[in-house]
Amino acid sequence: MLFTQTFIPTLREVPADALIVSHRLMFRAGMLRKLANGLFAYLPLGLRSFRKVEAIVREEMDAIGALEIKPTVVVPGELWKESGRWETMGEAMLRVKNRLGGDFVVSPTAEEAVTSLVRDELASYRQLPLRLYQINTKYRDEVRPRYGVMRSREFVMKDAYSYHTDASSLDETYTAMGAAYRRIFTRCGLSVIPVRADSGAMGGSDSEEFMVESAIGDNTLILCHTCDYAANVEKAACKPDGTEASPTDIPALEPIHTPEVKTIEQLCAFLKTDAQRFIKTLIYRASNVALDLSGAPGSGGLEKRKSSPDAPEVYPEAFFAVAIRGDLGVNEVKLAAVLKASEVSLAADHEVVRLTGAPVGFAGPVGLRTIPLIADLSVTAIPEGVTGALVADTHYAHVVYGRDFVPWLTADLRTVVSGDRCACCGGELYEKKGNELGHIFKLGYKYTRSMQVRYLDEKGQAHIPLMGTYGIGLDRTLASVIEEHHDEAGIIWPMSVAPYQVIIIPITYGGTVKAAADTLSAALETRGIEVLLDDRNERAGVKFKDADLLGIPYRVVVGDKHLAREVPAVEVKRRGEASVRLVEAATAADELSRLVYRELGR
Amino acid sequence: MLFTQTFIPTLREVPADALIVSHRLMFRAGMLRKLANGLFAYLPLGLRSFRKVEAIVREEMDAIGALEIKPTVVVPGELWKESGRWETMGEAMLRVKNRLGGDFVVSPTAEEAVTSLVRDELASYRQLPLRLYQINTKYRDEVRPRYGVMRSREFVMKDAYSYHTDASSLDETYTAMGAAYRRIFTRCGLSVIPVRADSGAMGGSDSEEFMVESAIGDNTLILCHTCDYAANVEKAACKPDGTEASPTDIPALEPIHTPEVKTIEQLCAFLKTDAQRFIKTLIYRASNVALDLSGAPGSGGLEKRKSSPDAPEVYPEAFFAVAIRGDLGVNEVKLAAVLKASEVSLAADHEVVRLTGAPVGFAGPVGLRTIPLIADLSVTAIPEGVTGALVADTHYAHVVYGRDFVPWLTADLRTVVSGDRCACCGGELYEKKGNELGHIFKLGYKYTRSMQVRYLDEKGQAHIPLMGTYGIGLDRTLASVIEEHHDEAGIIWPMSVAPYQVIIIPITYGGTVKAAADTLSAALETRGIEVLLDDRNERAGVKFKDADLLGIPYRVVVGDKHLAREVPAVEVKRRGEASVRLVEAATAADELSRLVYRELGR
Repeated sequence: MLFTQTFIPTLREVPADALIVSHRLMFRAGMLRKLANGLFAYLPLGLRSFRKVEAIVREEMDAIGALEIKPTVVVPGELWKESGRWETMGEAMLRVKNRLGGDFVVSPTAEEAVTSLVRDELASYRQLPLRLYQINTKYRDEVRPRYGVMRSREFVMKDAYSYHTDASSLDETYTAMGAAYRRIFTRCGLSVIPVRADSGAMGGSDSEEFMVESAIGDNTLILCHTCDYAANVEKAACKPDGTEASPTDIPALEPIHTPEVKTIEQLCAFLKTDAQRFIKTLIYRASNVALDLSGAPGSGGLEKRKSSPDAPEVYPEAFFAVAIRGDLGVNEVKLAAVLKASEVSLAADHEVVRLTGAPVGFAGPVGLRTIPLIADLSVTAIPEGVTGALVADTHYAHVVYGRDFVPWLTADLRTVVSGDRCACCGGELYEKKGNELGHIFKLGYKYTRSMQVRYLDEKGQAHIPLMGTYGIGLDRTLASVIEEHHDEAGIIWPMSVAPYQVIIIPITYGGTVKAAADTLSAALETRGIEVLLDDRNERAGVKFKDADLLGIPYRVVVGDKHLAREVPAVEVKRRGEASVRLVEAATAADELSRLVYRELGR
Repeated sequence: MLFTQTFIPTLREVPADALIVSHRLMFRAGMLRKLANGLFAYLPLGLRSFRKVEAIVREEMDAIGALEIKPTVVVPGELWKESGRWETMGEAMLRVKNRLGGDFVVSPTAEEAVTSLVRDELASYRQLPLRLYQINTKYRDEVRPRYGVMRSREFVMKDAYSYHTDASSLDETYTAMGAAYRRIFTRCGLSVIPVRADSGAMGGSDSEEFMVESAIGDNTLILCHTCDYAANVEKAACKPDGTEASPTDIPALEPIHTPEVKTIEQLCAFLKTDAQRFIKTLIYRASNVALDLSGAPGSGGLEKRKSSPDAPEVYPEAFFAVAIRGDLGVNEVKLAAVLKASEVSLAADHEVVRLTGAPVGFAGPVGLRTIPLIADLSVTAIPEGVTGALVADTHYAHVVYGRDFVPWLTADLRTVVSGDRCACCGGELYEKKGNELGHIFKLGYKYTRSMQVRYLDEKGQAHIPLMGTYGIGLDRTLASVIEEHHDEAGIIWPMSVAPYQVIIIPITYGGTVKAAADTLSAALETRGIEVLLDDRNERAGVKFKDADLLGIPYRVVVGDKHLAREVPAVEVKRRGEASVRLVEAATAADELSRLVYRELGR
């Protein structure tokens, strides 16, 4: 391809809103342009690399027997009402009313659409397992789209869905997907960190996220210095800091007057001690609690209900007190998992007052009977604590777990931070910011139950199939390749996703130089190599700078000087390496295609 | 691929709403399923053929130097407001408000999005011509989507846009596109009829539509029995039926009393003559008329205005009388073209009364001074006519064109019908119904002017580039292949777009038959052939029926009987042909791959 025959508008300047390397380089290299906030158009160079990522994803999906389908991008809102997500997806889901007043959704994901197709076709266990995928446009109406295609509103996702008769079949597909994802990222030249993740709003249980490290990442990862433990902070566990205290000779509970002392900091200053001695008590409101609360304090008035005939029974709303060591934070995702709740959030001040009988700042576990008390494991290790007394301006000293209060439940609820100890090996944990490129989940019955999917077993009995879901963001994956492979001068493409494999730069495009450049280009193309020939009427310096910016793996400079040697030669340089070497012009095509195919692993 | 490892849910029954062959067969063959009215999901088999159509289109676009890009599907409404189509596109355009209240559009086409990209990047004449295309999701909110993917709401279009410094450059691309379109349809096995088309709401001048004949077609085509004239009825011309009359000895104009006679039929009965003698006069309202009306009767109060600073001056609204021979219809598209109007429609009754001074049914050209009169050519050839007298219950007899009235303009305005004479050769014209698969247009300055695109010429002078637009509907193209290639039993795929090239049917999948079938399948795949092996535990009859339904070009039956021959053999049959022949099992892979590659033209 001749440079002047394609459309690669390179830029010297950096767009003002481009805060990260991949955004800057994709714009400067003419890969991408902005149509509106969060909406980007791929130009020819960018699309070439994008299609290579797409092809790698498709190959790996096909290799594990997943079948490609193509549902629509715009889907009926009816399906989302069936699954219940019409209500729960929030404003990030782009909803449309068509001319006839019907509700539609510009797909943010496709559990509903694919499950509805499967529901209509599924009859027998013999059709299972069924593994379907699409590579298609998705839309999420991000409030603050940023960082180019790393967090855009419209993007392309590979989303796969699997259906199974039993857990071992689901497990097999889940494992195969995990392996395929590792191969995909490796082939794209990406170092991903697979982490145990919470499945969040998606529902379900086992899941794994594929993260890349990124200073602007959405996610906090907890990693271990010693072993290979890696988890999303939302789900990360750590070793408890001590064993359960069994204190003796602690004085009896003693009320202390603490006027105007409402925060942990104020209390620390007032009592001249540190936060590790305090038992902090927070009041939470939880929605759709599936955990059985019968017998729990304060649960008398609560009753389980079904939101639809096929839905499981839940308590629509319930309140809980959570006690935790003063220096720690409550991980709400862990709390929701313990309660089997769809959502948890801190109670409003007026609810705290109503439930604790005291102003905000004086909640405590001692004598609390209005709502169930859940204690983080850290509380069980405090030998002698201080806590709110459920009375204004009053705290208790000498509080002993088990003696002065017994929680309804104890559980691991803390947010793990750098310096905590690894639950696996005891090593020191540390934090990294990361971006999620892929995610695999076992969904269980969540959608197949709510959308009433059935198959018949060998005996003609109807059952609900198990389901898994598996996504990869293609745009993000491409941007992450650039984040990982670049230098000051520009992109350094891994061969697998390079837009072209060889760039030929004639010092001036004319005479014998032009003839040699054209001949080499044609010879490479005959060998199946993708070549960009910079035929522009520009100074060599400009062409070199653009070649570095575009990041095409092999650069070949064709000039009079080396062509005039006894054995005519050209200069070959691998992008990202410093050395330039001379290659005989006559054999350059063979040599270069050998190098390219070696890097492609063929 | 094993049949049991893919997902091809074939049906014996025909879906009730499937009115045309392609819709029926795509459903029965398990290619397609419905998500909602006008929204269809491709299943694996359908997607394989779809991707082949896509690949053919991409190859032919690349071959003429068009560059693939990928704008978003959801685009800012702002761009449509700039072009003016936010108002004119009507309800077929799906509009969305996002969470921040911004206007967005789910793209029905992409003149605006691509032109906005080009506007931002275009600086110099050296960047032109620029030919960009995308193959991407489109949405049109059809009121009555029908016929499966032949007229669905969501579909995939290849849409290309070109930008030029001059008309000859635009012409070159337009011609190359036309040739590429012919190759695309030929490669898909389609007989298309390229017709001169009106450019309708798209604006602009030269255009060509690529039609396939279809009983349920949206379009009426006018074709000539004698020459190769082909046109959309919206633009079709014909030879005038006579020359301009130059009558002598016609009596003077004579009013006749015609009480309660309002229609042509009533008048024919009343006067005992036929409609060809009547001069029918219709009153039209036209919007955004660019034709200069200065000096036209009744145009005194009209003033040209600009809807935006860069828009051309137009009369926002004007009325016209159109006189035409009584048996003919006015072609409103032709009328709009003559008036250079964005829209024309029959005036309301009260407007007719106001403008003609008579009840509806008594309009006529004689003495009409309130609005400009336009006469179809047919009127000029009536030697002695009858027409309304602009007075209730009165007509004129002995009306002579040129003597009793002189129109402001004469033009070809009639709707051509079967039996009219070809304007090119005088042959007899006939009608066909057709569906449009592709369309190429010269848009001129329509979008580049309204969206303020500029480039600098050699001397640094700013100019607006010319533009062309070129579309192909991929889903429609695929469905049309089935419309053209099928029989009672099912689809008969052309090799180029067949989902698989060979289907192997083992009579029973076990023992030596299984071994032979597996070996043949592997040998074919090694040779690059796409094979479906029907490993289902079904009766041979069921497999044969499904093979005919799926329409895979070569069917190979592997059975004990022929394997047991001295020279083991298999049965080979070309779908669509009656004869079955025995092929030596050992050489079947070579023989079949030779046949397949021959059909692919390789």
